[in-house]
Amino acid sequence: MKENNKIKQHVTVLGLGAMGTALAGAFLQAGHRTTVWNRSADKMKPLLEKGAVAASTVAEAIAASDLIVVCVLNYTVLEKIVKPVAGALRGRTLVSLTNDTPQKAKQMAAWTETHGINYLDGSVLVPVPVVGQSDALLLYSGAKGVFDRHLNVLKALGGKSIYLGDEPGRAALYDLGMTNIFFISLTGVLYSYALLNAEGEKATDFLPYAREIFAVAASFLEDFADSADNRHYPGDLDNIAMEAAGIEHIIRAGSDAGINVSVPEAVKSVFDRAIAAGFGANGMPGIIEGIK
Amino acid sequence: MKENNKIKQHVTVLGLGAMGTALAGAFLQAGHRTTVWNRSADKMKPLLEKGAVAASTVAEAIAASDLIVVCVLNYTVLEKIVKPVAGALRGRTLVSLTNDTPQKAKQMAAWTETHGINYLDGSVLVPVPVVGQSDALLLYSGAKGVFDRHLNVLKALGGKSIYLGDEPGRAALYDLGMTNIFFISLTGVLYSYALLNAEGEKATDFLPYAREIFAVAASFLEDFADSADNRHYPGDLDNIAMEAAGIEHIIRAGSDAGINVSVPEAVKSVFDRAIAAGFGANGMPGIIEGIK
Repeated sequence: MKENNKIKQHVTVLGLGAMGTALAGAFLQAGHRTTVWNRSADKMKPLLEKGAVAASTVAEAIAASDLIVVCVLNYTVLEKIVKPVAGALRGRTLVSLTNDTPQKAKQMAAWTETHGINYLDGSVLVPVPVVGQSDALLLYSGAKGVFDRHLNVLKALGGKSIYLGDEPGRAALYDLGMTNIFFISLTGVLYSYALLNAEGEKATDFLPYAREIFAVAASFLEDFADSADNRHYPGDLDNIAMEAAGIEHIIRAGSDAGINVSVPEAVKSVFDRAIAAGFGANGMPGIIEGIK
Repeated sequence: MKENNKIKQHVTVLGLGAMGTALAGAFLQAGHRTTVWNRSADKMKPLLEKGAVAASTVAEAIAASDLIVVCVLNYTVLEKIVKPVAGALRGRTLVSLTNDTPQKAKQMAAWTETHGINYLDGSVLVPVPVVGQSDALLLYSGAKGVFDRHLNVLKALGGKSIYLGDEPGRAALYDLGMTNIFFISLTGVLYSYALLNAEGEKATDFLPYAREIFAVAASFLEDFADSADNRHYPGDLDNIAMEAAGIEHIIRAGSDAGINVSVPEAVKSVFDRAIAAGFGANGMPGIIEGIK
């Protein structure tokens, strides 16, 4: 039974952008018979050289495997590809690793259910070069039985392939939640670096302090999660009104230095909305009341 | 000579808001003769009970010590307090731990120089309850000789009392740089939590993923600092144009969930500005070109 992991399976990959190509490459690397299809056929070439099987139509690609993985630009493109071949997909498993919103994922899940298609909605949380590695994180939501049945093959895409439950939008939601933290926090870091540079200072000199405050911020993730879930924002250690004044200094310093201050201004607007809603004396997680 | 640290010194604290009171308390705790003054005298009471000496005027408070520490709302308030007593301050050391912009700090440094006042501009990087502790971080800029002369006393405010050099605005700049990273990154985290809550999910369930992505973001601080200083933003692993599309999903998901999306929209605007400036094919630190 230990050999189970190594049994060659059939898998189809639809869409060969940078990520789709990496997914197909990882399946091939793991020894699976991998059928590929892409709107423009030239994208298939490098994969065919690695042993992939070319399909000339979507229907042909679907017929080749029980497991069909699709990664395209968004769900508008995804729907154009799969909706005309609903009949061919019936009884098979469609796994979308296409990036979009939870609502789009839920709509696709509802559509597949109507057409007797097994469906998993997933997200690749690592950049292209990391796909297929043991520490690559992929999140999936959908029916547990479907995930369990295909995990052995899907694991080829990343060692950290995690099932988040049967709510079909959850993988997309967690993906956006993580992506949002990544982009906003690093935009904040780059704002500080830009401010330093504009004042003639080096970001690399400031680096130890950036690291220190980033670690301090990390130490609040758990308390803030509790605060969010319980809508409980004690103001004993800090308060939103004082913090809004601090952010005002950041905005003024940015303006003095001649840099664009739209991000700190937007952050301040959320603090101000929370104050207007009566949460000025609450602790920082109370700004959620200015977001909701 | 080891006893040097324990020699009782004279120090004056002007301004007894929450932070000023904590500063005076830390000096008293360390055994220094601490003279205090505040515009409204009732704020002095708790400190007098701990052994502080009350001054009824600013001039009297200054006359009591060679070292005068001031922490008030901002530099407008600070200037109103110290400018009328320039003569009394001559030859003494003024340390401002007042929160404001680097420009205000530089202006105050220039004014003190004109009046023969030794000056340090500092920042308290910890909340009130942490003042005086061994891990409390305070940053100072100004003349090295002045810092060295008073470090033994100033250390009472925090074990991590760090000299950043003689550029007088640097402590304020580093303070704002750190504060900015703290507020923007945690606002990003709270946005994700708000999005999850709005979709009926718990932030506490998402916490391990928030932690993971925050740690991933932390791993970029050094590379991004190098990129900022060298204006070198390689696009081999990621690019701003693709990332802007990802942020667009976050905005749409936020709108679907009915939450305020002003912060992700402001972040996206910075990415768009970088794209418009010709940096769409560059890596994420290239958004600095959309900030500058």
